[in-house]
Amino acid sequence: MSVGDARPLRIVAVCGSLRAASKNRALLEAAQLLAPHGVEIALDWSLATLPHFNPDLDTLDGTSLPPEAVAWRATIAIADGLLISTPEYAHGIPGVLKNALDWLVSSTDFPGKPVALLGASAMSVIAPVQLREILVTMNGRFVSEASVTIPVPGAGASAAAIVADPELSAMLRGALEAFVGAIGESE
Amino acid sequence: MSVGDARPLRIVAVCGSLRAASKNRALLEAAQLLAPHGVEIALDWSLATLPHFNPDLDTLDGTSLPPEAVAWRATIAIADGLLISTPEYAHGIPGVLKNALDWLVSSTDFPGKPVALLGASAMSVIAPVQLREILVTMNGRFVSEASVTIPVPGAGASAAAIVADPELSAMLRGALEAFVGAIGESE
Repeated sequence: MSVGDARPLRIVAVCGSLRAASKNRALLEAAQLLAPHGVEIALDWSLATLPHFNPDLDTLDGTSLPPEAVAWRATIAIADGLLISTPEYAHGIPGVLKNALDWLVSSTDFPGKPVALLGASAMSVIAPVQLREILVTMNGRFVSEASVTIPVPGAGASAAAIVADPELSAMLRGALEAFVGAIGESE
Repeated sequence: MSVGDARPLRIVAVCGSLRAASKNRALLEAAQLLAPHGVEIALDWSLATLPHFNPDLDTLDGTSLPPEAVAWRATIAIADGLLISTPEYAHGIPGVLKNALDWLVSSTDFPGKPVALLGASAMSVIAPVQLREILVTMNGRFVSEASVTIPVPGAGASAAAIVADPELSAMLRGALEAFVGAIGESE
């Protein structure tokens, strides 16, 4: 489908930090405020309630999947794209985010899914490389042109402050437009 | 302390997979069976019960830490070394393992702790590099000479089968001796 269709384009946004005042969360909330016309961005917190991934529960017939994993896969299945914003912990991806991805590895809905990464700190340069490698290995369609670092200043920055900043909001709008464009091309 | 002291050297072993028939788990159980004299290897499963890391609970005074995180840090605090064996999921570290490490990032007991990685599959080459980067960033003392890949054949290999294999058990003994030697040098 394209943006012009009746159904809005649905982008699921996932934040890699559970911190209430997370800059990455503020960035995704700003993305919701700046969503292009016909695009719905839903901030999803499945990762906070997913159990730890256990391959013994991830059987081929899916009958052993925990209900949280079933719901998380369904959320991804109906999404037109996945937008991730995450901090870096000790030069790595937060475990809570990787755990959510581990539950998608064997999912048939993830391959081909457009994915973009929004960085909130210019200091995070190692985790995004690892994350891209993981997403590509999972056969996600990594959208480079929509994956940018938007240097959100200080701690406790709000979505409203990001939207009000001409430079930051222009970068964010540009990334979202690039993502929506890439999603449109794939469908 | 050194191996000759009255107290046994205590190595905490952590498996990155929750799979019951995990090759990495079998490798760590084999390490327990082959532990050098005066060395105790304890297989710890804190990672399975730790909540998802949340920086808001990881305050400087420690009063908001979940009890599972307090216990996990105490386990690491009294360990002379940390032995990790983990599979690779989608070219990344299992989220459940990274989550356990995330809870240690601000701990004062982890810096300087000797750490070794035992691989169970020659196919896993990307996650170990990421894990080493993370451990070094956390100021762990990575013991390269004890970090080896021991190619455990097939699925469902038992600790007893690893111990009974002359080549695999020799590799494992060598890694453990190198680890114990490095721990002895640091104390």
